Formats: sequence, C-alpha cells, structure tokens
Amino acid sequence: RAVREVLFFPSRPCCTEELLAEAEGRGGRPAPCPCPLPRADCSFSRLLRRLLSARRSLELCLFAFSSPELGRAVCVLHRRGVRVRVVTDSQYMALRGSQIGVLRLLGIQVRHNQDVAFMHHKFAIVDKKMLITGSLNWTMEAIHSNRENVVIMEDAEYVRPFLDEFERIWEECNPE
Amino acid sequence: RAVREVLFFPSRPCCTEELLAEAEGRGGRPAPCPCPLPRADCSFSRLLRRLLSARRSLELCLFAFSSPELGRAVCVLHRRGVRVRVVTDSQYMALRGSQIGVLRLLGIQVRHNQDVAFMHHKFAIVDKKMLITGSLNWTMEAIHSNRENVVIMEDAEYVRPFLDEFERIWEECNPE
Ligand SMILES: [Zn+2]
Ligand SMILES: [Zn+2]
Repeated sequence: RAVREVLFFPSRPCCTEELLAEAEGRGGRPAPCPCPLPRADCSFSRLLRRLLSARRSLELCLFAFSSPELGRAVCVLHRRGVRVRVVTDSQYMALRGSQIGVLRLLGIQVRHNQDVAFMHHKFAIVDKKMLITGSLNWTMEAIHSNRENVVIMEDAEYVRPFLDEFERIWEECNPE
Repeated sequence: RAVREVLFFPSRPCCTEELLAEAEGRGGRPAPCPCPLPRADCSFSRLLRRLLSARRSLELCLFAFSSPELGRAVCVLHRRGVRVRVVTDSQYMALRGSQIGVLRLLGIQVRHNQDVAFMHHKFAIVDKKMLITGSLNWTMEAIHSNRENVVIMEDAEYVRPFLDEFERIWEECNPE
C-alpha cells in the first residue's frame, strides 16, 4: 500500500538523538540522551525516519538547508553508500549555518542554480519512489517555530514528475 | 477519478486575461486581450482554472499573497458567492503589494497569526475536496521567476488533514 502521510509543523518538541545515533550505528546500543525532551514520535522524528529509510538514492532539492539534525541524517546516508545528490539555492547556501559546506567536504555532490531567481523547491526523493515535499525549509526555525506542512507520497503520478524535474534542474545546474 | 496533478514554475509566459475576464462574467464575450503572450495553457493558467472551479468554499492559508491575477481570481469567487476564508502571515501582509487589504475591503474574511513565527503554509482548499499545496507563494516573482512546485490532489488522506489544520489555525487566529 502506497504511503500517504501529512506532517504539520512546528513539531512538538521531542528528542531525536537516539534515532540519529542508532542510524549512525557506531556499534552497540547508543548511550541514552541526557536531555529532558520526550521520546515520543513527533513530526520531526517522522520526517527523519522517512529520510533514513533510504537504501539506494536520495535526491534533495532544497532552498535552505541549515538544520544540523537533517545534515547528520544526510551524512549517515552518504556514509552508508546511498547516492545523495543535492540541488540548492545559490544565495541561501552562502548564509551562516548552511549545511551545504559540510556535505561538500564529505564528498556529497552538490549543485546550485546559476541565475538570480530563487531555487525555492523543498523536496526530497527517497529511492526514486517516495516523495517528501511541502512548505518546510530544512532549517531549525521552520521545524521548531513556523507553521509548515510536509506531504509524503508514493503515488507514481506525483513521484515521477518530481524525479523528472530533479533531473532537469540537475543538468541545468551543471557547472561544466 | 481523483485529480492528481503536478505543476512546476516558473510558468511559461501565457496570457490569462481572457480566462479572468470570462470568470468575471461582465456579460457578453470579453474583448480579446491585445498583449502578445501566447494563449496556450501554462502552469499559471492551470492553477487559476483549478481555483476558479470553486462553487461553494475556498480556504486559503498563505504566507505571501501579492499576485494581482490571483487576487482577481479570489475576488471573482467571493462575488459569485463562494465562501472565502484567508489566513495569512502578519509580517508579510504589511508589505507593499499585498493583496490582503483589497480582499478585506471587499468583505472577505481574513485572519493572521498573532505570534512572531512565520505562518509559512501555501495551500488552498477548493470546495473542501481539492487541495492545492506546494512551495509556491502567491507572488509574481514565484510564478514568473522562481523554481517552484504545486501539487493538486483530491485524495481524502491529504485533503482531510489540511482541512483540519486550516480550522485549527483559523480558530487560533481569531482575534476575539
Ligand atoms: Zn535528547
Ligand atoms: Zn494578454
């Protein structure tokens, strides 16, 4: 059955440390996080779980990417051998706190638009079959303060056009 | 069969004057628009058509609303007797070019968030059964310059949570 899920933000506060530490899998059970946040599911942990489910590929097309937790999740996937490709906005990526520099240092392929208009998408495609899209920029303010939505879908009528659009943008943003 | 449509922006340039003039229905056939833009369908005219299909209700939850054409479309619906309700962002609505003042002058119900975090949604619900959501703010830059997406869906798994979220935000933004 196709996944059809809607997440609203701001997310209720919840601890995502163990989720991320487990995904990083440095051997053994991760030490319990000392923070006082509840361990229950929240919109943010659900988003992280969907991303961390990637096994083969992850396409990211993101206006803004500064959330350290989402940065950690993407790095884990890269280390696991998932093929990660990122397209981002040329103006936003230069701002303080952007995760884009970290991703590049790790060898993740990143491209950005070459024109002045905004690359304003905020979508991810997991294993070419799950689309995650909405109003949510990948920033701490968006996750923890703003009113935002994320829609998760596996229906091919939605996933296919976004995949095609990603490939189009990826080629257009080729610096060579 | 449920509508499932994806629109990408920037929209190809196309003339939407006749589409809007016809919807305004001032009697007789509207005069042909003298502008040189092609009359073919484009992402923007498709978006307008979906909105103009409203017969009973239109819920709008919009961070930014400054497109004059989209403003005209919403005014047409209001004049036709469609119940229009708008929630918008308190900071953005004060900016130059916002359509919010026009809507209020016409008697359309508008509310805004009372806190400092962004009301960053960009969705519309037509007749409680069609959801229009994505990255696209309702501004001329977004429509004609930026890379953006809009997803249109009638599956209840998506529409119902957005309707509930609208009602929640509508009550929270009640100034009384
Ligand atoms: Zn914790
Ligand atoms: Zn024209």
